[in-house]
This record gives sequence, structure tokens and C-alpha cells, in this order.
Amino acid sequence: MKKLLFLFLFTSLFGFAQNSDENQLKEIYKSALTNSKCYTWLDDLSNKIGSRLSGSVGAQKAVEYTKTQMEALGGFDKVYLQEVMVPKWVRGEKETAYILDNKTKIKVPVCALGGSVATSKKGVTAEVIEVHSLKELETLGIDKIKGKIVFFNRPMDNAQIESMNAYGGAGDQRWSGAREASKFGAVATIVRSLNFRLDDFPHTGSQSYGDIPKMQYIPTAAISTNGAELLSKKLKQNSKLTFYLKQSCQQMEEVLSYNVIGEIKGTEHPENIIVVGGHLDSWDLADGSHDDGAGCVQSMEVANIFKNIGYKPKNTIRVVMFMNEENGGRGGKKYQELAQINKENHIFALESDSGGFSPRGFSFESDDTNFAKISNWKTLFEPYLIHSFTKGHGGSDIEPLTSTKIVKAGLHPDSQRYFDYHHAANDTFDAINKRELELGAATMTSLIYLIDKYGIE
Amino acid sequence: MKKLLFLFLFTSLFGFAQNSDENQLKEIYKSALTNSKCYTWLDDLSNKIGSRLSGSVGAQKAVEYTKTQMEALGGFDKVYLQEVMVPKWVRGEKETAYILDNKTKIKVPVCALGGSVATSKKGVTAEVIEVHSLKELETLGIDKIKGKIVFFNRPMDNAQIESMNAYGGAGDQRWSGAREASKFGAVATIVRSLNFRLDDFPHTGSQSYGDIPKMQYIPTAAISTNGAELLSKKLKQNSKLTFYLKQSCQQMEEVLSYNVIGEIKGTEHPENIIVVGGHLDSWDLADGSHDDGAGCVQSMEVANIFKNIGYKPKNTIRVVMFMNEENGGRGGKKYQELAQINKENHIFALESDSGGFSPRGFSFESDDTNFAKISNWKTLFEPYLIHSFTKGHGGSDIEPLTSTKIVKAGLHPDSQRYFDYHHAANDTFDAINKRELELGAATMTSLIYLIDKYGIE
Repeated sequence: MKKLLFLFLFTSLFGFAQNSDENQLKEIYKSALTNSKCYTWLDDLSNKIGSRLSGSVGAQKAVEYTKTQMEALGGFDKVYLQEVMVPKWVRGEKETAYILDNKTKIKVPVCALGGSVATSKKGVTAEVIEVHSLKELETLGIDKIKGKIVFFNRPMDNAQIESMNAYGGAGDQRWSGAREASKFGAVATIVRSLNFRLDDFPHTGSQSYGDIPKMQYIPTAAISTNGAELLSKKLKQNSKLTFYLKQSCQQMEEVLSYNVIGEIKGTEHPENIIVVGGHLDSWDLADGSHDDGAGCVQSMEVANIFKNIGYKPKNTIRVVMFMNEENGGRGGKKYQELAQINKENHIFALESDSGGFSPRGFSFESDDTNFAKISNWKTLFEPYLIHSFTKGHGGSDIEPLTSTKIVKAGLHPDSQRYFDYHHAANDTFDAINKRELELGAATMTSLIYLIDKYGIE
Repeated sequence: MKKLLFLFLFTSLFGFAQNSDENQLKEIYKSALTNSKCYTWLDDLSNKIGSRLSGSVGAQKAVEYTKTQMEALGGFDKVYLQEVMVPKWVRGEKETAYILDNKTKIKVPVCALGGSVATSKKGVTAEVIEVHSLKELETLGIDKIKGKIVFFNRPMDNAQIESMNAYGGAGDQRWSGAREASKFGAVATIVRSLNFRLDDFPHTGSQSYGDIPKMQYIPTAAISTNGAELLSKKLKQNSKLTFYLKQSCQQMEEVLSYNVIGEIKGTEHPENIIVVGGHLDSWDLADGSHDDGAGCVQSMEVANIFKNIGYKPKNTIRVVMFMNEENGGRGGKKYQELAQINKENHIFALESDSGGFSPRGFSFESDDTNFAKISNWKTLFEPYLIHSFTKGHGGSDIEPLTSTKIVKAGLHPDSQRYFDYHHAANDTFDAINKRELELGAATMTSLIYLIDKYGIE
């Protein structure tokens, strides 16, 4: 009796039954490492379908592919699509850029930023003014900027331990650079790629003109880090050099696209919904294997692992492939909109959208009580080298999701290599390590298993 | 007074002064990420010098290069060489191998294992018998094996979380396969490469004929994992197929080589020595950027960081580039031999020889008291995502080192990708991420700083 009481106290104190959970996690990781489908799925997404920018043929094929694969898997009670209108932006012809320094003409690698307008057909040529922050624009003022190309060249801060923090610290140049430079009469902006490495890949990504009038939109492009270093060096030698940029990108009419959802109905609380997902769209320059093919196939793998180990969730599990994270976030918003209309009760949402690298832990959007409860599970994860349970951002697609009481989380993979590939032409399947991808899927499955079993407070 | 007493108790209880150490680690990591030399050193070692098998021109150049660089660094009180005789094995002409299946002849990627004898000039052709363990050889016995090529095809166990454990679990086939197969009359052995991935790289590595007579030595080679899969499949279809292997490797006379040592004399206890090192030799198929160029330049970086942050160690620090870890371990043995002769007192030794990937922690060869003391420092490392402090192997080169009281440790980087490159032609500089390399160096420096400051018990 005393033993039972002790066991009860112990279990309720720590919020889990150590032994059976230890065994369950063992099964989960073993299944992921020896019997997974995620690597093959990603091979297909990356190498048979390729890039998947919203509104593209690739995006549509990816919708069909993941729906078909989830149906074929057999573990879902239903697989369905959610209609969502998405913006469609096309790059057009490959961009061209030159540094024109006296009589020399040096080609540099650039790519239009997502949402940018084109240059004229002849391109734009102008003197260049190098700045390192949005604030510096103001200091320089219209006299120094008008008629010029503004070159934003603040590098990602190497001193940051987490690469995401360095990305956050440099990202305003890409997101708001064109909008702000336009206000001072700039004719275009060139932004240093958000990449720690010195290499020749320009990295695209979203930018926003905000609420400035359309006629004030100016073309904006990313330049590779090597290109940025070169341009900066040349400017020091000759501040009067000019820069030529030509791009023919275009914002088209919105098109119909879809979130893809696979649902496993809960055996005890089907009304409680747990979401696990990634985003199916990717930038157009590459396969998007890390961003975010990895997160999609890892989310699908959660269902595969549950099937393989014979685990029947108590709550409803939804595997969601969100559409349009990269340049609009429409899929996440639509999912929330429909959840509200249908009065659904979401208790937990997990997103994987930080690359398919070795998992290190999770970041949680949670109240203190649930964070403490979940943190007590850390010992269960230690054998798998999962140690980092922190409070922080869950994910862009699950950000709009609200519910009476919901905890959100983001998978936290090792972040050091992520920006070597992020939004660039080398975000391809060969940059993925099978075991790292699988370990990420196992880590996600383990958390979902524990949330499903013990619920949230 | 009470406050001081409390502070004293607190400090001695936990073995460190939290705040000043926190700041010192901040400086260390910042220096590594913003002001390091290790990546450039590795670029030189890998791309200017290249492979560095013991006794090769590359190995000699690497001795000269690292000595010169440590002298140029300026942080050392002396830089010197330790003479050590090393075995010299040469691969000779590139190996050739075919599966001969009826009238088809399929070329497969192989490489001689280190220390193997050559085939005859014509090569060896024989039927193949596939086995999965040394024990299986015994079961099959001389009748089934005599005159054949034994094909060891037990894969690394994918279910292992740490890839090193999977390596350990499959390594006996490579190390002892030829010796054991020879006892049953085999004419050669082919060993599945120690690599999780299915690819076309054969992975070399040491093997030993043990004490069998020289005339019983048989040629032994590694086959790529794709090659092994194909051979196994073909054998299932035709157990009478034959295999052709030609290799012309050779064991030469021993030659003189060196450990390279940079020494910073301790300000308070110069008689106490702390070693940090890696091994300068590498296999001959590639640059050896991960194995173990990374460990060498990270060890040199420890001195660079101390110099940059102005830290003067209390104990003597020796940065040691060990020679001949891969096929003899002579450098480590020689270092210990001379330490004994000179009656040196080593208190700590740290080796980095598991690749230049994101650091996760350390494994310690330590008594319980010191392990507990060191484990109390874990919180200092958590901001850098260093969580794993376990008991385990330090490193091959520091293994022979004994002293009155010594703690040994090995840097524990993320291990998932290591065997994609280990001992194969793709262990090259492009597989190194600068920040991961630097974070490893910072993690090593931080531990050495703490050991230097607080000593061992």
C-alpha cells in the first residue's frame, strides 16, 4: 500500500511514469533510425518535385504528393486539403549584376528578394552608398541617398552562439531595407546575404514595402557574402563606382493552394487536437530540403512511427503541411481561421522549421506551469542528447493558432550550418544527413507522445 | 564577515566562482567566434599539405607547418619536436576490384586496409563467402572458407544513438577479419566500409594480423557500402560468382618522425602539466580535415584564445600534435615514455579526435571526486549548448599517459555525420563548418581554463 502511494506521489510529482516512458521513447527512436520513411519522402520532395514556392507547379505537386503519401501510409483516419489563396511571385529571368569600376565590369552573384519589383528592362545603374543599419539611412538623409543604390552590408553577428539570433539581428536590412531606402529617394537596394560564410550564394527571402505607395517600390536584391565583401572593398577604393542591377521578377494574381492535413482521431479525447507540422512551400532557388522539406517529412514520420510502434493517441493528432510560410503565411492563418469557425480545441502545436540537423531540444511558448511539467521530462530525452528546453518561439505557421489553452513548441536542431543553406541554391537534398533527420523526427514524436499521454494543465 | 564566509563556503562547495567564470567563458567563446586562426590553419593543413599518413611527405610538412605556426603565434614559451620512429605503409597503385558474375564484370570501389599486404601482381580471384561476424567464421570452418575470399558484411547498427558505439560494434571485422579468416585458409578478405550511409566511398583504417606468421598474411580491403550491398545481392543470385582484387600496398622500413609541442609555462605551478592535443597524421585517401586536422588546429587555438584574452595559465599548458595515431599510436607512447623519464607530473589531458562538428560535451576518464567537481561546472557551459558530461574514453593518443593523479577527457562533438567522412576520400576541408570548429575550440579552452584555475583533487 505504502509502495503504491509512494509510486502515485512520485508519478504525480514528476508528471510521468519513468519506466514505461523510457521504454516507449526507446521504441520511438529505434523505429525512426531503423524503419523510417522520412528520408525517402524528402528525396522525392527534393529531387522529384524540387522547389515549391507558393503558386508554383512544384507547390501544387507537393500538395498532391504529400496527400497521396499520407493516404498510402494507412495510419490516418482521414487525409484532406484546406483551401487557401496564396500570393504568387515569380523570379523571371535570372538576375544580372555588375560592379562598374572605371573600365572594369565585375559580375557579382545576386538574386531578387521575394516580393521585390523588377528593374526596368534595361536595368538600373547608379552610384552606391554602403550603410550598416536602417538608422544610418536617417543620419545620411535624402541628400546622400537620393538617386543611389543603397547597399546594406551589416554582417550576421558571429559572436552569437545561436545562429537564429544572428539572423534576427541582421534581418531588418532584408525585410525593411527597400521600404526605408525608398523614403530617402534610393533607386534600388542591395542587401548582404544572411549567411555567416563567405561564399558565392545569394540568399533570397521575404521583404516588405509596408504601406508606402506602389509607385515608390524600388527593386531589391541580395548579394552573396563574397560579393558584398568585394563591393565594400571596391567602394573604399572608389566611392564613385556604379552598380548595375537587372531583375525581372513579378507579383502575379493570387492563386488557390492548399494546406495538407492527415488526421488520427483520438481514442479518448478526440475533441482535443495536437498539431505537428512544417511548411510545404519553399523558396524557388533550390529544393528547400532543409527549409522546410525536412520539417514536413519529420511531421509525417510522427504518424509513421506511431503506426510502427502501435501507439494509438488519446487525443486527435493532425499532421499539417502548411502552405505559404515563406512569403505570406497564409496557410497558418487559414488553419487558425477554420479552427475558430469549427470551434476546435487545440491543446498543443509543434513545428519543425529550423532545418533537418541534429536535434538539440525545443523552444516552448508556454505558461510556467506547463513549461515546468514538460521540463520534468528532460531526463527522458537525455539518452538521445536532447538537453535544451527553453522558452521561445514555436514557429511561424502555428503562431496564429489560438485556443482556450494551448502550448506551442518548435523543434530546435543544431543551428550552426542552417544559414549556409537557408533560402539559397544549395539548400538541396545532399545537405541532409539521414540520421540527423530521423533523430529530429524521433524527438518530435517523443514529445507528442508525452503531451498526448499526460495532457497539458 | 559572514558574507565572506558564505562566499567562501559557496565557492569551495561548488568548486568555482560563478560570475568571473561566466565572464571568462564569454570572452573565450567570443574570441573563438570572432578572432580565431583555426579555420585558416586547417585550410592550410588540408589544402596546402593534404594527406598526412605517418612517414609520408605530407606528415613531415605538417610537422614543419604546425611548428612554424606555433612559433609565429607568439603565445608559447617554447615550441619543440619529440623524435619518434613510426611505421610507414604505402598504398601504391590505386586498387582494382570486380565482381565476376558469369560473363559480367562489375567494378566496385575498394581500398586496401592500412597495414594490409598486397595481392600478387596479377591480383587474386576467388569465390566469395559472406559472413557477418568473426564467430560465423568458426561455425563455417575450414571446409567452407579455404581458398575463398571472405566478405565481412555486418553493417554499423543504425539503432545506436551515438555513431561511435555503432563503429565499435562493427569494427572487429576490419581490425581482426583478415587474421581470423587466414586461420581458416581464406585467400583475402573484403570488409564492408564502416559508414552508415549507402555511398561509393571505401573507408580505410587499421587492421592487424596479430601474431600469425607473416607467410599467412592475406590481402584485406574495404568495399564501399553500395559495393557491399551489390555484392551481397549478387551472391544471393549466384553463390558461385568470383571476386577479383588487386592491390599493391607495402609496409616499408620505419622512419623518423615527430610529435610537435608548444608549451606555455605555468605562472604558479609550472611543474603541473596540462596537455591538449590531436593527432597530426591522417589516412592517405583525403585531407583528414575531420580526422584529425580539426583536433590539431582546435588545440592550437586554445593557445591563441588564451593569448587573445590575456589569460596566463597557472599550470604549464602543452599543445601536442601527436604523430601516428592512425596506424601505430607511436606518438602517444613516445610522449608518455619521455614524460616518465623526465618525471613529469601531468594533471590533465584533453584530446579532440572525433571530428570538427558542433561540440556537445566531453567524456571523462576520471575518479568520482574529480568527475563530480567537473560536473558542477556544467551550468557554465549550458549557454553554449554544451550539456553532455559523461564518463568514457579520453583519446587514443593520451591513453598511454600515466601520472600520480591525472584526469583525461575527450571532446565530444555531434557524431552523426562523422562516419560519412571517416577514413574516406571525402574527409576534406569543405566538410568543415567554421563555426562548429571554433565552438569546439572554445569548449576545449573553457574546460582547460577551469581545470587550470581550480586544479584537480
